[in-house]
Amino acid sequence: MDQPVIGDVFGELVQDAFAVRTGVGPRPLAGGRVPRPVIEIIERDDGLINGAPADHYLAEPDEWQPHDHRALRLCRGAVLDIGCGAGRTALELQRRSMAVTGLDISPGAIAIARKRGLRDTVLTSVDEYARAATRYDTFLMLGNNLGLIEGPERAPVFLAALAQLARPGARIIAQGTDPYGTTDPVHVGYHERNRERGRLGGQLRLRLRYRMQATDWFDYLVCSVAELEELLHGTGWRLKSVDEQDRPYYLAVMELNP
Amino acid sequence: MDQPVIGDVFGELVQDAFAVRTGVGPRPLAGGRVPRPVIEIIERDDGLINGAPADHYLAEPDEWQPHDHRALRLCRGAVLDIGCGAGRTALELQRRSMAVTGLDISPGAIAIARKRGLRDTVLTSVDEYARAATRYDTFLMLGNNLGLIEGPERAPVFLAALAQLARPGARIIAQGTDPYGTTDPVHVGYHERNRERGRLGGQLRLRLRYRMQATDWFDYLVCSVAELEELLHGTGWRLKSVDEQDRPYYLAVMELNP
Repeated sequence: MDQPVIGDVFGELVQDAFAVRTGVGPRPLAGGRVPRPVIEIIERDDGLINGAPADHYLAEPDEWQPHDHRALRLCRGAVLDIGCGAGRTALELQRRSMAVTGLDISPGAIAIARKRGLRDTVLTSVDEYARAATRYDTFLMLGNNLGLIEGPERAPVFLAALAQLARPGARIIAQGTDPYGTTDPVHVGYHERNRERGRLGGQLRLRLRYRMQATDWFDYLVCSVAELEELLHGTGWRLKSVDEQDRPYYLAVMELNP
Repeated sequence: MDQPVIGDVFGELVQDAFAVRTGVGPRPLAGGRVPRPVIEIIERDDGLINGAPADHYLAEPDEWQPHDHRALRLCRGAVLDIGCGAGRTALELQRRSMAVTGLDISPGAIAIARKRGLRDTVLTSVDEYARAATRYDTFLMLGNNLGLIEGPERAPVFLAALAQLARPGARIIAQGTDPYGTTDPVHVGYHERNRERGRLGGQLRLRLRYRMQATDWFDYLVCSVAELEELLHGTGWRLKSVDEQDRPYYLAVMELNP
């Protein structure tokens, strides 16, 4: 059987989801006529496969979860929206006349964010961007984007890049999910297997697939607040507050040590 | 990366979709709390992957497509619902006091059909079942189940099994989809590649995946009405009528030659 092609999976699916939501542009049809829902497919390295409708990447504020609204109220100064995707949160900050830059490594997602009106975007990684002269007061990582810290190896490097991009008094506002409330043997077994391999329980190894394309395998961290605190040790960042109203989701606010 | 396990993919996903729809029983949760939508994942042998919400397998009549209702009005006598799944159409025929048997090869699907109240079920293939003494007036193949004839090799065998199960004057009522209305290069290219290999354009080679499980690869036929007529030659069955009101979907009625 043919293998999928490595490509901009996230960009492709966001572009199709945008075409379905707006009714504009080509989109996947069944039998050339009936629109198909756009589904993001996530494979895990233990063989687990999950699908999730992609439309939420384009959700308007009245469709958001409550913690997204609370997160935006914590933003101040110049905001870097990390993994901005199709601009869901960055566009709302821009509407509120805040200074916001949307950063993403997906060309397709950045193209849609710009099409939707997001003015300041950068197509790059935080590591590359840390070499720029621009500095920020707030780093926003919503939509589970705390996962971008990947795990114990990557987290200090990622957080050092943000420290380089930080103005004095800057904060990170990140949304995570505590994975350990489950009793599902598929997940409990996966967490154990990860720990046996010296990884954090919720240090997921994933790839995304959409239509003919796949990403390479990458790590994505789903961790508890206690694990996050552990990862912050020695990075210069400390946990300032945690909002756990919408469990298992949480909002973590981090600041640089003075 | 670990390979998925071969198993009753369809049964698992229908059981989870039933738990989500009714709110009863264990079902997949994100972070142990938030219900996940149940998505059927379909891989094609060219690397294409698609997800589709599974809830439609449990749709009540008021959620059906119009051609499903027209198909039920064509049923008469004793009905064999082939690939009955969770009993979507068989349960409605039973409600209308018709004699209906639900046949499926998925233990999980048959278990849900029985739980929902379907009284007469058989867990087997049409080939096995053709050895039984039971005979039918109508063979019902909805939900794209015309695809079960697979292609030019399998179709005569499948149709011979139905002829064995047929009472005089019996009919097949099957819903198909004409795949050739598309301009999507992914599909047009696949149709061409199939023809180069001596297959029908829409002779799909697929496997299903759900959570930790996969099916083996199997053929599933999506064909035009003209191709269907061609496949019927020499089988003893002839096309009696076609309802193309809901294109690209169609309902084909077939009868045994006198």
